[in-house]
Parts: sequence; structure tokens; C-alpha cells
Amino acid sequence: MGAVTATSDDRRWMAAALALAERTRGRTAPNPNVGCVLVAAGRVVGRGWTQPGGRPHAEAMALAAAGPAARGGCAYVTLEPCAHVSPRGPACADLLIAAGVARVVIALRDPDPRTDGSGIARLRAAGITVVTDVAGDAARRSMAGFLTRRERSRPSVTLKLATSLDGQIALPDGSSRWITGAAARAHVHLERSRHDAILVGRGTWEADAPRLDVRLPGLSDRSPMRVVLSTRPPPSASAALPSSLIGRGNDPQGARDPLWIDSPAGIATLPADHVFVEGGAATAAAFLRADLVDRLLLYRAPILIGAGKAAIGDFGLGDLAAAHGRWRLLDARDLGTDRLEVYERTPCSPA
Amino acid sequence: MGAVTATSDDRRWMAAALALAERTRGRTAPNPNVGCVLVAAGRVVGRGWTQPGGRPHAEAMALAAAGPAARGGCAYVTLEPCAHVSPRGPACADLLIAAGVARVVIALRDPDPRTDGSGIARLRAAGITVVTDVAGDAARRSMAGFLTRRERSRPSVTLKLATSLDGQIALPDGSSRWITGAAARAHVHLERSRHDAILVGRGTWEADAPRLDVRLPGLSDRSPMRVVLSTRPPPSASAALPSSLIGRGNDPQGARDPLWIDSPAGIATLPADHVFVEGGAATAAAFLRADLVDRLLLYRAPILIGAGKAAIGDFGLGDLAAAHGRWRLLDARDLGTDRLEVYERTPCSPA
Ligand SMILES: NC(=O)c1ccc[n+]([C@@H]2O[C@H](COP(=O)([O-])OP(=O)(O)OC[C@H]3O[C@@H](n4cnc5c(N)ncnc54)[C@H](OP(=O)(O)O)[C@@H]3O)[C@@H](O)[C@H]2O)c1
Ligand SMILES: NC(=O)c1ccc[n+]([C@@H]2O[C@H](COP(=O)([O-])OP(=O)(O)OC[C@H]3O[C@@H](n4cnc5c(N)ncnc54)[C@H](OP(=O)(O)O)[C@@H]3O)[C@@H](O)[C@H]2O)c1
Repeated sequence: MGAVTATSDDRRWMAAALALAERTRGRTAPNPNVGCVLVAAGRVVGRGWTQPGGRPHAEAMALAAAGPAARGGCAYVTLEPCAHVSPRGPACADLLIAAGVARVVIALRDPDPRTDGSGIARLRAAGITVVTDVAGDAARRSMAGFLTRRERSRPSVTLKLATSLDGQIALPDGSSRWITGAAARAHVHLERSRHDAILVGRGTWEADAPRLDVRLPGLSDRSPMRVVLSTRPPPSASAALPSSLIGRGNDPQGARDPLWIDSPAGIATLPADHVFVEGGAATAAAFLRADLVDRLLLYRAPILIGAGKAAIGDFGLGDLAAAHGRWRLLDARDLGTDRLEVYERTPCSPA
Repeated sequence: MGAVTATSDDRRWMAAALALAERTRGRTAPNPNVGCVLVAAGRVVGRGWTQPGGRPHAEAMALAAAGPAARGGCAYVTLEPCAHVSPRGPACADLLIAAGVARVVIALRDPDPRTDGSGIARLRAAGITVVTDVAGDAARRSMAGFLTRRERSRPSVTLKLATSLDGQIALPDGSSRWITGAAARAHVHLERSRHDAILVGRGTWEADAPRLDVRLPGLSDRSPMRVVLSTRPPPSASAALPSSLIGRGNDPQGARDPLWIDSPAGIATLPADHVFVEGGAATAAAFLRADLVDRLLLYRAPILIGAGKAAIGDFGLGDLAAAHGRWRLLDARDLGTDRLEVYERTPCSPA
């Protein structure tokens, strides 16, 4: 229990903490989505994850569940416990010390300048064994929104494409219902629920009047904010919105008024850390051209379309050499007869 | 050894026979590419496969290798042994009887009316135990060219596409070197060696002057015949060619003069049972429109191109419902950072 380097048990418990962290991904901005597992004598005595809106923190939730059982135990947290007291609650480092945990295993150091190592220092000063950098890559992916906001002052962006084997998203007449099957479409809805915002271009907004909501049993309250990209003012603009957040237009569905932004860079102004871009082709190209895509979700159906509408418009690729080395396959799975591939931007590609 | 139903050992030996059958796939037309393994007392005593040009047959080769060791053994053959004597050699059923094998395991009955069950009958009449339909599906795929020629009076057609993730085969300026990497390109050459003929459209022929050969160490003598699709006469036509085989034009490389056909259906006139269609987009579409594609090879590189050249032109797809259910994933593998997917036409799709 007191080991100062990570064990294989540590990695397993951290995987559990990372799974908990996924529960509120897309609903904690501007806070990170953190997961925490408290283990004492080989048993889980408390579990926590950042609550929607950002509070309580994962550690506070897990400690509340554990009560006195936390004493002498080990806390697995996906992010360094915070060291700053806020009006909304005490510092998690202090809570862990007060609860008497003996050891804290941390996936990732918190880049927030109010913490950034001081949480770890405070735990160590209290005599707690601290192990860091356990499953750091996975934690980075889990909190991509929070970290991208810190590092690049913008949300993390996922581009979704649903295509035929030959990369088409519609027939020449525009019909695209359906290319992928029910399982893939349900997975898209699950992914929507893990983002704060769904964005489409004005072309798609006006052609399809899409609902862009989460239509999965039990998750229908998870529909993210909707965002439309357009250089023109929204049909009915409202005032007092930040810089490139150009308006809040009429919602064809009568609810969840969308926000309108006038350039891909406008995502920085959104109250969102995870943005899900669903097309169309011009919008996908605009985000690629601005180099603002961090993650690709490719849903592919085993069909051929031939002449139709391509998934992505011109994004200014100069030559093939420039196209290579930018994307790395992270995950792939079958969804019915369709296939999902998840790519992430490689570290070597320009930021 | 005398079992009249297949055992798991039988299936393993048949897999070995099927692997041998692959050795001359694309070089035995109009004969089938057959494999044969002779096993006695649990040991392989002879192996054979149809030789280029069609003779000797697989069984004759395996029996010659085994000599007297074949007596009392078991022969695994991917196709029913032939029952007809030809000027080029005796019937394989008679050879097996003469060699004294005790048991013959067969993947597929031979649809050739000169055999079609009479090989099996002759073996049984000689007191040999015969087991049939072992790995029949795999044998069907292995001998797709021979069987398609029998059943549809044309060769089996594989369409190859090498695309980006978004289905493009070139940039707007036509540049396509390289989309896929070295491993994928080597695999294309291996596939070429397994076909009798490689076909491209006149657009590709004239734009790229492609060599369409097999440039793999040890396989450079396996380059198939080259075929060009065009409604216009070849640059320099020669006479006396069958119906829609419209000519034999000048070869820009000075060797391996291509054959020219004026419609996809013209493949029926080729002295080939396996045709490999390599594009371009108009040619891919022409074969799909004529419903003449049996197998798809999709090589995909992890890159995005955006506006470029699509892999497949208009093939007259009326609606999305008609696109579904036609293709089934058969095999997939990683080739470096690229991925190969092999699809086959589903049995339910119209013939
Ligand atoms: N099958 C599928 O998966 C799928 C998914 C999505 C969409 N679609 C289809 O795609 C079609 C629409 O696609 P599309 O490519 O024509 O349109 P789109 O991308 O949805 O919208 C294009 C509009 O987005 C705005 N825009 C694009 N780039 C911009 C930039 N850099 N800055 C600011 N605004 C920008 C412009 O609006 P302004 O002109 O107002 O400036 C532009 O006209 C629809 O028919 C839809 O059904 C299919
Ligand atoms: N990256 C890759 O993997 C790849 C692969 C192949 C090709 N390419 C590129 O694709 C480009 C050429 O493509 P493409 O689509 O323009 O041309 P293509 O398919 O190679 O050739 C088109 C020609 O094929 C003939 N053709 C098409 N359908 C026919 C039919 N039903 N019956 C008879 N003839 C028919 C016609 O010749 P006639 O006009 O003489 O009748 C037509 O002009 C080239 O730039 C090449 O580099 C790229």
C-alpha cells in the first residue's frame, strides 16, 4: 500500500477512476472531469467524479461516500487534487489529509496555476505517499477539453464523419438517410452526450433543421448546446454576446436556441470545453483549414455510393506529403455492420 | 483414418491444401487452381498444386512426390478429382485409385460436366472412403475465377481502391503519389500476381502510362496480362480478335502489349479467370454499374485530402436502400499505418 512507484494494481484502480471521470465529460466546463476511487484493504470504499457544473469535486464525493473507511487507504485520482480553497468548497488536498488517507496515486499534474504541483506538495508535507504519472496519456485524453482550453485557449474539437466506404456522405440529390445503421447512430448520440456543444454549418442548419440532441433512453437530458457556423447574422440576432459569438438565433425546434459563431476560431468564446463538429463538408473543411480538429470519429457503412457528396470540402491541402503523419488510429470498433474508427491528431503535427 | 465425416484434423489438412492452391491462382485459366495434400500415418507424404497453364493437376503432382508412400493414406483436395482422361494426362480419380489411397477428402464438387460427381462415384466404386464439403466456402473463394467462369460465363472481378480516409484517390491536380505506403503498395503487387489480368480505363492508361506489373522480389515473372477499357480503337489496332476484344494496342513500355476491350462485359472474352480492376473512377463506376464486381480491396491511408478526386464515379445508384446489403467484410489487416479491407459481394445481392 505504501509503494512509492506504481504497481499493476495501481494501474487497474486508475483505470476505474478514469471510467468514472467519463461520466460527466462534456458537463463540467470550465472545470476538468475528474474521477476518484478510494481503496482500503483491497476494497473500494468510495467513488467520485466531478459533478455537472464542476462541483462537488471527485475527491470530495468519494470521501463523503467512504466516511471513516478512507483512513489509511489509497486515493486514485485522475488529476492532481486541488490546493486552493474556493467559495464553493475546500481544497481537495486538505480533505484527503483530513480523512487520513495514507497514499495518493495521481494520473496527471494539474496545470491550473492555483494548483500545479502545490496539491502534491501539500499531501507530501502531511506525510502522505504520492505517486504521479500513472496512466497519464489516458488521463490527458479523458480531460482533453480542460487541457486544450489551458494549453490552446480553446475547446477540444472532435470532427465526426459518417460516410460510405468511398467517403461519400450523401447521394447527388443530398439524400443521406441512412448511410450508417442504428448502432452507429446511437453511438453518435452517446458521443454528443460527452461534449458540451454540437456545431454545424449554416448550410446543414438550414437544409436539415437538425435537432442535434441526445435521443438515448436515460440520456435525453444530456443534450449539449447547439452552435451554428456562419459569416452572416443569425435569422434573429440578440445582443450582448462576446466578440465572435455573433448571436443567438431562432431555433427551428422552438427550444435550445443555438449560439452562432462567425469563424471556427469563434469556438474559443463558447462556454464549452468539448465541441462536436457534425458537418457539413464546408464546415469540416473550415475546421481542418484552421487546424482546429483534435480528434476524428469516422463512422463507415459497408456501402458504395459513387458520385455523391464528399465528406470534406477543400481545406487547402498543398501536397500529399503534408497530409501524412497527422492522424493516428486510437480506437476502432464494429457497430453492427458499420465500423467506427477514432483518430487523434499526432503530437508531431503542427498545433 | 477411415472416418466418413470430417474431423478437425481433416479441416486442418484441408487448410494446408487451400494454401497450396493459392500458389498458382491467376495462372491456371481455364483450369481451376487446386491444392492437394497427401497424408499417411499422420505425416505429409506429398503436396501438389495445379501447375501454371493447368497441368499437371494437383493430385498428379502430390502422388508423384509421394510414390509408394501414398498407399493407405488420405488425399485432401480442394476440388473433386477429375474423372475425364485428356490428351494432357490421365484422370486424377484413376491416379488416386491406382496409388491405393484409402480415403479422399474433398472441399468442393467439380461443376465441370465432365466430372460433376463422377469423380467421387469412381473413387467410391473403388472402395475409397470419400468425404465432401470440407471448407467448401473457402474453396469457393480460392477458385472464384474458375467458378465464376462456369456460373456466369465471365472471370471473377476484384476492384481495387487506394484512398484517403475521406475516400479520395488524388488531389485536385491529380497527384496521387503516394496516398498509401510501401507495405500497402507491395500488397497490391502481391494481389496483381494472383490475377490473370490487370485492367485500367483509357484515362488512367494515357495519363499514367502505368506498368501494371509485379515488382516484388521473386515474383517479377508473375506480371499478368494488361487490359485497357475504352470505347475508342486502341492507338494501333491489330486484327482478328474475338468480339468485344477490340484490339491489341501499342504498349508505351514496349512490352506486354495490352488487350483492349470496349465494355466491362468484354472481360468475358479475355483469356483470364481473375481480373484485377485498378481504376480510374470512371472505370470503377462502369464495372459497378454493370454489376460486375465480385470483390473489393480497399487500401486506406490515415490521411485526409478534402476536395480531390473521388475513387468512384457515378454508377447510377438510385437510392441509399439499394446500396445496402451488397458488401460483406471478409478480411481486414494493417499494412504499416494503412489498412486493407476485403469485401465480397453478398449472396443476396443481384447477380
Ligand atoms: N450525411 C451526413 O453525415 C451529413 C452531415 C452534415 C451535413 N450534411 C449535409 O451537408 C449539406 C450542407 O453541407 P455544406 O457543406 O453545404 O454546408 P455546411 O458546412 O453545413 O454550411 C456551410 C456554411 O457554413 C458557413 N461556413 C463555412 N465555413 C465557414 C467559415 N470558415 N467561417 C464562417 N462560416 C463558415 C457558411 O455560412 P455563411 O454562408 O452563412 O457564411 C457556409 O455557407 C446539407 O445538405 C446536409 O444535409 C450531411
Ligand atoms: N490513386 C489511384 O489509386 C488511381 C488509380 C487509378 C487511376 N487514377 C487516376 O485517375 C485518373 C483517370 O481516371 P478517369 O476516371 O478519368 O479515367 P479511367 O476510368 O481510367 O478511364 C476513363 C475511360 O475509360 C473508358 N470507359 C469508361 N467506362 C467505360 C465503359 N462503360 N465502356 C467502355 N469504356 C469505358 C472511357 O474511354 P473512352 O473515352 O476511350 O471510351 C473513358 O474515357 C488518372 O488521372 C489516374 O492517375 C488514380
